[in-house]
Amino acid sequence: MPGNKTLDKISSELIKQKKKISTAESCTGGLIAHYLTNISGSSNFFDRGIIAYSNIAKIDLLNVSKDLLEKHGAVSKEVAYAMADDIRKQSNVDIGLATTGIAGPTGGTVDKPVGLVYIAISTSEKTNVKKFKFSGNRLENKTSTLHAALNMLYEELKG
Amino acid sequence: MPGNKTLDKISSELIKQKKKISTAESCTGGLIAHYLTNISGSSNFFDRGIIAYSNIAKIDLLNVSKDLLEKHGAVSKEVAYAMADDIRKQSNVDIGLATTGIAGPTGGTVDKPVGLVYIAISTSEKTNVKKFKFSGNRLENKTSTLHAALNMLYEELKG
Repeated sequence: MPGNKTLDKISSELIKQKKKISTAESCTGGLIAHYLTNISGSSNFFDRGIIAYSNIAKIDLLNVSKDLLEKHGAVSKEVAYAMADDIRKQSNVDIGLATTGIAGPTGGTVDKPVGLVYIAISTSEKTNVKKFKFSGNRLENKTSTLHAALNMLYEELKG
Repeated sequence: MPGNKTLDKISSELIKQKKKISTAESCTGGLIAHYLTNISGSSNFFDRGIIAYSNIAKIDLLNVSKDLLEKHGAVSKEVAYAMADDIRKQSNVDIGLATTGIAGPTGGTVDKPVGLVYIAISTSEKTNVKKFKFSGNRLENKTSTLHAALNMLYEELKG
């Protein structure tokens, strides 16, 4: 699990830059929001988090189109992009962070194996999506995704 | 943190009873959803989670009325009830679980001290709200809320 240092640096930057963040998680299931809200005073920079586990939740709560889900699948660059973009816009914050992936041990296919994860960060200027392939058990894959997401977030904040 | 036994018992009951759950968290910030989704196969019983940290998120995503928030405050029996009820109905599941409280160390008042937490469980038959007063640090209060929520959930499932 990430140490307090990473979280402290992120919260310091968010507060210094007066930026707010919201999260849209699938495979991490709330882990990222849990870490961000471990910081006292996080209500100053964290607005909301959505854990869209089912496809219908992605459609209902994050305006991901049914066509996009059918064409690319829930675990895809395109859906990660759409989730991050929507959570930022719907909550009127500076940064939207999204994860979608296959934590395992079930749910993997040849094309989309266990450990495949997409992480997206959306700002008003751009939306970046990165692809990862982790190789741990379910909790390890969630934790690796958390680490990678926090690193991407810190990089984004450093500019 | 709760052992695998508590989670295993809950997931077994949910699967056996063919019941689905959604969560609406405030003070726990995603911790409960994180635990529920640590179970492999949780997509069979977990539909969605909303982390409504700001009041506007509670209004936007959980249909908590502005009047209710103004009259009783976000940390209240009434708001916990409304959050659990709405997340169950909006996601068309059997059980809605909600938390609202003051994790601390800041944000406490004489009337509503740090550690005050309301947990609500909503089913089609009834909505139960319990009041707690924890006395740990921020993470300990989140974890105590998680434990209490999982115990309430297991009691509900046992009937």
